[in-house]
Amino acid sequence: MLKERIRDIPDYPKKGILYKDLTPLFKDEHAFALCIDELANRISKKKVDYIAGIEARGFLVGAPVAYKLRKGFIPIRKKGKLPYKTVSMDYTLEYGQQTIEMHEDSLDGKENVVVIDDLLATGGTTRASIDLISSFGANITALAFIVELGYLNGREKLKGHDVISLIKY
Amino acid sequence: MLKERIRDIPDYPKKGILYKDLTPLFKDEHAFALCIDELANRISKKKVDYIAGIEARGFLVGAPVAYKLRKGFIPIRKKGKLPYKTVSMDYTLEYGQQTIEMHEDSLDGKENVVVIDDLLATGGTTRASIDLISSFGANITALAFIVELGYLNGREKLKGHDVISLIKY
Repeated sequence: MLKERIRDIPDYPKKGILYKDLTPLFKDEHAFALCIDELANRISKKKVDYIAGIEARGFLVGAPVAYKLRKGFIPIRKKGKLPYKTVSMDYTLEYGQQTIEMHEDSLDGKENVVVIDDLLATGGTTRASIDLISSFGANITALAFIVELGYLNGREKLKGHDVISLIKY
Repeated sequence: MLKERIRDIPDYPKKGILYKDLTPLFKDEHAFALCIDELANRISKKKVDYIAGIEARGFLVGAPVAYKLRKGFIPIRKKGKLPYKTVSMDYTLEYGQQTIEMHEDSLDGKENVVVIDDLLATGGTTRASIDLISSFGANITALAFIVELGYLNGREKLKGHDVISLIKY
């Protein structure tokens, strides 16, 4: 049922890549609520103080999970988007160099954090998020996604961490 | 209580602007859930088929409201971010020309839509979102925000529409 709500976009963002478009899933109230409920259910079995969501679709998935679990939400944003003092992490994606940031007072080092994004592809951004959160001394108890592109082996980059995904390709 | 969770950032994004940073509010599980519950409660009194959220913080607020009300969520994104065919709307902000986009199959013209963002400032992006949604023929039944900067008179640009805000400055 959920896979029927995921649209294939060939050659996006560049030739040879088959992009998984989740907007039909988000638009379907049953599919959307089902995904949030299932992620929240599986995350509730972990130690969790905060949900961290990766800009921008990780906000769309992570914030409802945080709300459902009655946890605070912490944004991980692209460079230059956060207004207060930040800490940052550079990383390399196939499209070039990227930087993500968090506010320097996002965490104090004792918290259990679950990182959420909509989709696990190569795992580059998630890996950088782990490194950024770890730089505070905080503990990452799970990495959670609606979709996992298993053929890209993203889990390789996330070794030692608990990976949750609802739909696999 | 909620205002204590909003941080003033002077001279951001440019000199003379006092930016309201909501990240401490999102991080506080009680304040965050209170805002989502109250927005959902007020929106539930309107006709609503879909929640549309404006990238990126409008995802963070709109998606939990959609989840709570068991409605579908439709993203309004900055130019070039959506993978499928889009319709777009240009508008002018104090920082220059901007463009927002929606997928061309986001709406079919009969729906009741509530637009959500974190904060109402001058109303430029919200006005463009109204125009974009109206171009489908859909009906906008409310515009909802956590914070309203009343001194910027954003409501002037949104005349004829029902504006909901939880915290006013």
